Amino acid sequence: MAFESKIRTIKWNGDSSRMIDQTIIPYEFKYVDIKTGDDMFVAIKDMIVRGAPAIGIAGAHGVVLYALEFEKQNLSLEEFKKKLIEKSDYLISSRPTAVNLKWAVEQQKDIIKNSKSDIQTIINDLTTNAVKLENEDIEINKKIGDYGAEVVPKGATILTHCNAGALATVGYGTALGVVRSAYAKDNTVQVFADETRPRQQGARLTTFELAMDGIPVTLITDGMCSYFMKKGMIDLVCTGADRIALNGDSANKIGTYTVAISAKYHNVPFYIAAPLSTIDINIKSGDEIPIEERSHEEVTHINGKIVCSDKAKVINPGFDVTPNELIAGIITEKGILRPPYEKSIKEAFNI
Amino acid sequence: MAFESKIRTIKWNGDSSRMIDQTIIPYEFKYVDIKTGDDMFVAIKDMIVRGAPAIGIAGAHGVVLYALEFEKQNLSLEEFKKKLIEKSDYLISSRPTAVNLKWAVEQQKDIIKNSKSDIQTIINDLTTNAVKLENEDIEINKKIGDYGAEVVPKGATILTHCNAGALATVGYGTALGVVRSAYAKDNTVQVFADETRPRQQGARLTTFELAMDGIPVTLITDGMCSYFMKKGMIDLVCTGADRIALNGDSANKIGTYTVAISAKYHNVPFYIAAPLSTIDINIKSGDEIPIEERSHEEVTHINGKIVCSDKAKVINPGFDVTPNELIAGIITEKGILRPPYEKSIKEAFNI
Repeated sequence: MAFESKIRTIKWNGDSSRMIDQTIIPYEFKYVDIKTGDDMFVAIKDMIVRGAPAIGIAGAHGVVLYALEFEKQNLSLEEFKKKLIEKSDYLISSRPTAVNLKWAVEQQKDIIKNSKSDIQTIINDLTTNAVKLENEDIEINKKIGDYGAEVVPKGATILTHCNAGALATVGYGTALGVVRSAYAKDNTVQVFADETRPRQQGARLTTFELAMDGIPVTLITDGMCSYFMKKGMIDLVCTGADRIALNGDSANKIGTYTVAISAKYHNVPFYIAAPLSTIDINIKSGDEIPIEERSHEEVTHINGKIVCSDKAKVINPGFDVTPNELIAGIITEKGILRPPYEKSIKEAFNI
Repeated sequence: MAFESKIRTIKWNGDSSRMIDQTIIPYEFKYVDIKTGDDMFVAIKDMIVRGAPAIGIAGAHGVVLYALEFEKQNLSLEEFKKKLIEKSDYLISSRPTAVNLKWAVEQQKDIIKNSKSDIQTIINDLTTNAVKLENEDIEINKKIGDYGAEVVPKGATILTHCNAGALATVGYGTALGVVRSAYAKDNTVQVFADETRPRQQGARLTTFELAMDGIPVTLITDGMCSYFMKKGMIDLVCTGADRIALNGDSANKIGTYTVAISAKYHNVPFYIAAPLSTIDINIKSGDEIPIEERSHEEVTHINGKIVCSDKAKVINPGFDVTPNELIAGIITEKGILRPPYEKSIKEAFNI
């Protein structure tokens, strides 16, 4: 059963990409129109739009924006295609860990490469595909939500890390899609949200979007999860993922792995909720997933103010990898994949 | 081998208690003189002074401050003693988890109760005992440091949580005492400091005091510990404690338990460093340790600015309990206690 969320994170808007600016939530809630490919690169890199599924759509939009710019440059068809492929690869490089970005932009690249038509037709095809991906994302999320809701016990408290919500997708959410679908069936379900330092997506985004949709949410700091698990106050953990290897190892926001270890120690089931587009069947294990190193200021500063000695060194990996042995199931639009994951993933992909 | 720290956190100053104001580090480094018992209650509660051993000393000072006030009120000896005992218990109530506060103030109460002398002599005896506890704290810390340094491998990276440093004690540190003694022997030792949300003692205090003493420190967020342990970048974990039960279960700053679980999963030894005054032999297990619930603003606000939806609920336990099975050893001034802890603790206390 689907819940209607009030949030539409990203939408193609005729000649621009309209998105919620996620860098200013919870202080402001406003939309920005991204009008050029270069601006889309920055929007993804600086996390105006973030979340693996959402940046996939953003990447698809970005290719259309570059195409609209190149259309005005009187290029030959061949030059147009060549430059657009280059810029597509540039967009993919904006964030290395989430595979959905690559997955969506590669679809656009295939349209460019395989087209036998003129520039205008290519642009139409790229736009049509981007809008199709948008609409499919919501449908996929709702399927994920409904499958996931089946494993949520009555009155459950669901712990989540980072934001795998409407704000991480086009409009319903993966992990928070599971929450929405569960809440639609049983309004005694509630959420505990990890703050998710350094960028505080749990505090800033997850509490914001759940409050906006009227779903009860309690904010905790990242170190607290074990305390509440030991007290029996967490019934399951559900997070999103940025890239899942063929063996089920799952990269997600830094800190997820720590929560998964704690869940295992307390026998609390830990689920990943993600579309099949997050699964990278080309890599065998999590060891092959590139981990983005992000700006040190994310750790040393909060709201522009330093929070430590200016002599402290910093390492800031944006993601970590939760090994398959800690994952009870991967909730996808084709059902819940269970261990052994290589087998269940291959079945889901019909390979 | 002892390292000379530049930091003296608290010192009796004739008729007041001089302490570093820890609420403004790392922005300012300044001393405040606490001149009344009520001000000491606030200084402890609001964490101008914090850290289990340091608040023990602060409590002992607080009793002297109340005694100096009552001296001016022309009370009978009996009234003086009665009021001073009441205020001593009031000081103990300022923070419920750390047992050192109770331990030090109970010593002062015994002096009051057992005295056969006049008010002036009682005040002298209370002052003498407070200064003795101060000096002993540094000596005890140095012994803890030297015992602990023996288990630090050459070139080790030591992960710590919260601040169990010079700033948590009179002037050398428990967990960071181990770091200082290890660094004095081997200057290739370095520290990883957990930020320690919500109050960020790791970011604000640990990076500050280690930088001040020239010891290399890398700041990480609380969720990152598992990432670095998996990479083999953490050789041991060492934290302080606020209260240790007879079976070795150890209460420490919220988030410690999560780190301990991760350390176990990665086979990284997890040590507690604490004076014997932190061990509460009157309680059998961690289940009996009272956990302080602190202000929700500590979670929802950073530097005075909200970081989440104003509709988010909050629970803010100040501490968690790490069960004995996760602790490789408890480093005390009488050596490193090893499991089974009930036996080794009883031996250390000669009971």
